[in-house]
Amino acid sequence: MAERLRTSRRGLLTLGTAAVAGTAAGTLTGCGSDADQPAAAPAMVAFGGDRQAGIATAQQDRLAFAAYDLTIDGTPAQNREALRELLKTWTAAARAMCAGKPVPGENKLGTAPPADTGEAFGSKPANLTVTIGFGPSLFDKRFGLADRRPAALADLPKFAGENLDAQNSNGDLAIQACSDDPMVAFHAVRNLARLGRGTVVMRWSQLGFGRAASTSTKQETPRNLFGFKDGTRNIHDAKTMDRWVFVGSDTDQKWMRDGSYLVARKIRMRIEAWDRDFLTDQQNVFGRHKYTGAPLTGGSEFDKPNFAAKNPDGSPTIPVGAHMRLAARENNGGVQILRRAYNYTDGMIAASGELDAGLFFLCYQRDPRSQFVALQRKLSAHDALNEYITHVGSGLYACPPGVADHEYWGQALLAD
Amino acid sequence: MAERLRTSRRGLLTLGTAAVAGTAAGTLTGCGSDADQPAAAPAMVAFGGDRQAGIATAQQDRLAFAAYDLTIDGTPAQNREALRELLKTWTAAARAMCAGKPVPGENKLGTAPPADTGEAFGSKPANLTVTIGFGPSLFDKRFGLADRRPAALADLPKFAGENLDAQNSNGDLAIQACSDDPMVAFHAVRNLARLGRGTVVMRWSQLGFGRAASTSTKQETPRNLFGFKDGTRNIHDAKTMDRWVFVGSDTDQKWMRDGSYLVARKIRMRIEAWDRDFLTDQQNVFGRHKYTGAPLTGGSEFDKPNFAAKNPDGSPTIPVGAHMRLAARENNGGVQILRRAYNYTDGMIAASGELDAGLFFLCYQRDPRSQFVALQRKLSAHDALNEYITHVGSGLYACPPGVADHEYWGQALLAD
Repeated sequence: MAERLRTSRRGLLTLGTAAVAGTAAGTLTGCGSDADQPAAAPAMVAFGGDRQAGIATAQQDRLAFAAYDLTIDGTPAQNREALRELLKTWTAAARAMCAGKPVPGENKLGTAPPADTGEAFGSKPANLTVTIGFGPSLFDKRFGLADRRPAALADLPKFAGENLDAQNSNGDLAIQACSDDPMVAFHAVRNLARLGRGTVVMRWSQLGFGRAASTSTKQETPRNLFGFKDGTRNIHDAKTMDRWVFVGSDTDQKWMRDGSYLVARKIRMRIEAWDRDFLTDQQNVFGRHKYTGAPLTGGSEFDKPNFAAKNPDGSPTIPVGAHMRLAARENNGGVQILRRAYNYTDGMIAASGELDAGLFFLCYQRDPRSQFVALQRKLSAHDALNEYITHVGSGLYACPPGVADHEYWGQALLAD
Repeated sequence: MAERLRTSRRGLLTLGTAAVAGTAAGTLTGCGSDADQPAAAPAMVAFGGDRQAGIATAQQDRLAFAAYDLTIDGTPAQNREALRELLKTWTAAARAMCAGKPVPGENKLGTAPPADTGEAFGSKPANLTVTIGFGPSLFDKRFGLADRRPAALADLPKFAGENLDAQNSNGDLAIQACSDDPMVAFHAVRNLARLGRGTVVMRWSQLGFGRAASTSTKQETPRNLFGFKDGTRNIHDAKTMDRWVFVGSDTDQKWMRDGSYLVARKIRMRIEAWDRDFLTDQQNVFGRHKYTGAPLTGGSEFDKPNFAAKNPDGSPTIPVGAHMRLAARENNGGVQILRRAYNYTDGMIAASGELDAGLFFLCYQRDPRSQFVALQRKLSAHDALNEYITHVGSGLYACPPGVADHEYWGQALLAD
């Protein structure tokens, strides 16, 4: 942070030119709309550490997610070496971008394309985190990694009611880029695709326009596109993160220690049908009051739900099929997952004239078999919300631990 | 603004409940992530006035755009009455939302759906503007409005190289919702669709994730997805707005006085091809330095380009096909348009593995025939940028003047 400069807009642009020409160590920051005001410290999240950033990090406002497939076609040893080179390049690029610097390399006039595509020049990192995950397909024969596949990275089962689109599911590698500035997040997934040309192709991607979960008690719980505060009872403290989110010493694959498993589900919401539903029914579906976010058993948003409470007619106040009842840790042997969901819209569904919109559900956990899979088996069978949602995309990824300054993503996994 | 409340998060949520239950005049504000800090005045743009907000307004960071088709099928008099009712309802809803209030109506428990879908409860308006436009198709036989069609609302001609998708073009009505909060913008187009059920269906929509133009000298010029600052020389002052953006007393249709014409073009960018191009060539395509935004003839971003300057070999320093040379007012008889473009991405193109991304170009003007159409005829024929872009969607809309407190959009147009 010592290299951060406080200067005028014009001054910064001049610095920008020097920096991107490859000479300066200066951080490209401070060019937001408040550039002429005294600068606050630019919001940055440390890239390095024992654990990857972007998991326990206070959830940023915007998401760019992309899954990639490797296209290398040599011997397992050759492929592994190419993957190693890719991950070294990606790690260096992600490290730079999270520090508000352009992708390393030349951005000069001449006979080579610029190293950085440039659309984020002058933007602050806005808490950018870039988090990588490895899909089950990475552990097939291509890279000779079959014996390093963690047991917890078991293929997800088929769930009731899902209607998955193979073109919006899976992938060898996944990148979750989160930032408070959507351009900065987009820039990250785009530049990684560019840097990987010849080695990877993007398989699918998703932009999340608004945060739909909170991972810090300092954050307001946002609303989903059904207008509800969902995810109020997310994991917010380090001890619970240790217990439920990050892989411990008991892992069968040491390279995953301090890593986490990401499950991504693209959940389309039937907005028009929901909007025709009565408020009473909507609240019964979630088990919460729409406006305050309080459980139907009263109090305020953060008050504990009383699952035993009954209405005067003897029916449970929080209905048996209420989303919140079914997902609650009290009713699942204490199981929790860390949710990092985002609202999305992809425009219209031409055939029906309905909005193509919903929740891009991202969750992190220590073992999907006993966490997401167990919860989703129950939800997919019984959740009252199922009348209004369909899971249309899915991905499962092993996210390795964080990296030290001179390490690269997956270094332990790819060691010979 | 007197009704704005400064209170704690919990307090606001309580207020929110009262307000949405239809009793309070209170404004639902202050629940952002800084809710526990002393509140600044919430950023709001006045809805009413001689001219619609969202045109000259300092450009907000996020866009939700939607075009709608009317589905009423009666006599012209019946249809006109139904359209009038729709526009009264829409105007009231837009007025409320821009003031940070929910859509007017009941949000109570009971046997009717809530009037407001709720996803923006607790969000600040974040400078929300909701701007309406009327497409050429509104002036067909259905509403008996053919003789009120302005001459300036002439169908756009076919331009060289365009490849328009009819499903992402045109529409009887268009709504441009801009806000610094994408949820608030999305909420506006969604709720208008909901309020119009039975009368309109959404035809197409587009989310713009980042501002790609500036309409105020207080704003930094943002970058497009090619990494360039384009639109530096936009209209920023009231006098030029009067001359080039808003309809004057010389209009053939008095109901358009103080209105403006919107041309929307969805411009797909061939990101991957661009990213393989050399910096020198990229700069020659735009006629500007990539990092500083300065014209190739030197200086800084806001310095005047010297179109007569030559390189030592006698070639023009700003090439003859440079986007900026072709679009410059000096080379177009002084013609200017007000640009309000946004960057967009719709994910991937499955067939090619390329990013489906680009510029959602919105521009406002007094007469498209002598402004956008004249400029685009030239650009579509000669612009060096054409190698990297394709226009894939298009819309033209007559945006009526603003409304006084008890007026509704299009009131003068729809008068008997």
